[in-house]
Amino acid sequence: MSATPITAANTSIVFTQLVTLLKAIFIRHGASPDVASVLADNCARAEQDGAHSHGVFRIPGYVSTLDSGWVNGQAVPVVEDVASGFVRVDAANGFAQPALAAARPLLVAKARSAGIAVLAIRNSHHFAALWPDVEPFAEEGLVALSVVNSMTCVVPHGADRPLFGTNPIAFAAPRADGPPIVFDLATSAIAHGDVQIAARKGERVPPGTGVDSLGQPTQDPKAILEGGALLPFGGHKGSALSMMVELLAAALTGGNFSFEFDWSNHPGAKTPWTGQLLIVIDPSKAAGQDFAERSQELVRQMHAAGLRRLPGDRRHRTRAKAEVEGIVLDGDELARLRKLAQG
Amino acid sequence: MSATPITAANTSIVFTQLVTLLKAIFIRHGASPDVASVLADNCARAEQDGAHSHGVFRIPGYVSTLDSGWVNGQAVPVVEDVASGFVRVDAANGFAQPALAAARPLLVAKARSAGIAVLAIRNSHHFAALWPDVEPFAEEGLVALSVVNSMTCVVPHGADRPLFGTNPIAFAAPRADGPPIVFDLATSAIAHGDVQIAARKGERVPPGTGVDSLGQPTQDPKAILEGGALLPFGGHKGSALSMMVELLAAALTGGNFSFEFDWSNHPGAKTPWTGQLLIVIDPSKAAGQDFAERSQELVRQMHAAGLRRLPGDRRHRTRAKAEVEGIVLDGDELARLRKLAQG
Repeated sequence: MSATPITAANTSIVFTQLVTLLKAIFIRHGASPDVASVLADNCARAEQDGAHSHGVFRIPGYVSTLDSGWVNGQAVPVVEDVASGFVRVDAANGFAQPALAAARPLLVAKARSAGIAVLAIRNSHHFAALWPDVEPFAEEGLVALSVVNSMTCVVPHGADRPLFGTNPIAFAAPRADGPPIVFDLATSAIAHGDVQIAARKGERVPPGTGVDSLGQPTQDPKAILEGGALLPFGGHKGSALSMMVELLAAALTGGNFSFEFDWSNHPGAKTPWTGQLLIVIDPSKAAGQDFAERSQELVRQMHAAGLRRLPGDRRHRTRAKAEVEGIVLDGDELARLRKLAQG
Repeated sequence: MSATPITAANTSIVFTQLVTLLKAIFIRHGASPDVASVLADNCARAEQDGAHSHGVFRIPGYVSTLDSGWVNGQAVPVVEDVASGFVRVDAANGFAQPALAAARPLLVAKARSAGIAVLAIRNSHHFAALWPDVEPFAEEGLVALSVVNSMTCVVPHGADRPLFGTNPIAFAAPRADGPPIVFDLATSAIAHGDVQIAARKGERVPPGTGVDSLGQPTQDPKAILEGGALLPFGGHKGSALSMMVELLAAALTGGNFSFEFDWSNHPGAKTPWTGQLLIVIDPSKAAGQDFAERSQELVRQMHAAGLRRLPGDRRHRTRAKAEVEGIVLDGDELARLRKLAQG
């Protein structure tokens, strides 16, 4: 996750231009203008932050999924006001991000009124990074936690066969003197996108991250992708957290578990059809000193203990650079994107 | 974590008798009858479940802490009804468990009404396992998540010096055909109690769990305890989760961070003076099939994937055995407990 250097083969594009280009691609492949706007902004933000595995790298997958008819790019999410702290959304077999966008004002209002609120999104496809879903809450002073399950590719600790998805957990909290504290971690030992990138580059993955089709440990990303599977991070603990994500993101939303959907009739489909949970807390309800001052104190002490880089720091630095210099893309990649917007 | 075999040197005690004995110890060392009841029940439950590092092993630490004047064994928690989903408790420099007990009816009522509720406990001492705090919610059909920060003994990933506590995360969810799904995991590579037990037994700890006073990796539990420190589980991911626990359990409650309290004037004090957060969700507000049926389906599929043992399984089996045969304690240990209740 870092800024791509400008070389002869690379080119720079302004954030808003990238959003416009991506939006045209989504519309060209069947998304409504509303859905296309949300997904284009989300994807461009990941690219801007140097999160390449969730940036324009994802566009061919989005396109083949839309073309396959697996997801409804025109879906209109249905928001349900269930209780003073509980919002449900039926994403109507569309993407999760437009569902979140549709429910967001109600979720924030409930969190500020009740002190905490939960958003349960079901019948949804999440094919993006998770931090863009939580970071904006922290930018308006709220604490946010989100989990999303995905598709069977992780062997539970102590099991023989894959069952869980990569099942990330993302968290964001405001702080007084800087951008929010944000992390987004796959509960698998490595993110699926990073395995794909390693395979494309011909690189090996770290030991302990995956097994081949016979269940044997491997560092070959292709062996993991072709019939193999990933392992949870941190042994039985990461596995327990991945199980929790299945329960929160699927059982508690009415969505599919990572092993429940069948896309075999939709060649080209890449997006898991599951659920997502968000919990948003208003820290102004807490006792004692202002939360953002307290989180700033924790950051101060983390630096004093010798920590040079906080979770999210690199993204925020890459973003600041991109805001001045533009987003650097490989020239061929940009040409392919332009073709997808037209062809 | 397993049942102690009955030998000539061991003896068996019925759960209620152990509670009575432990309650007498707490009262003898300055706890009020209410506080003593809650702590005795909590500690006996851990022992009954075979969670030895949080069972009667903890009693000398409780006693020396009470004797030191560090914690108020007579504290009466003050419950504050802040919003429709937010409850605060000032534990008044007492233990966290009586504070939870005092706030519990209001917390459950809010979770059932709002769909989700949060309990922020501050000014509290937590010296026990965390699963006894969440499991009872799942037994009445609710989903519960809790975090508690502790005392500086974990080096953040990438830092030079310890800062975080062992900062456990516990989760409980109901299921249709069996006891709740429950886990309780330290975000350190090993629980502090397990390091103490290894030191007492003269055993080594696994590689990657700690460093000595010079920051060098060690498997000697004494080197970890005497000036050394623990590492987070799972590298930067476990470290990020530990940071999240500091933010939720301290910054969001008004409690101390793990590095903020100073017990140097209270020799014998062992209990961290921090905060605890609980989030309780009512899954009956969710869309789709009954939550407990869905979690049962996940369990079924986990078993089908080859998983033999779920988180919590061993505890529940040990408990069932103890309910028939009693709780087996070392005879000397029981004698020491009886002395603490009288002397």
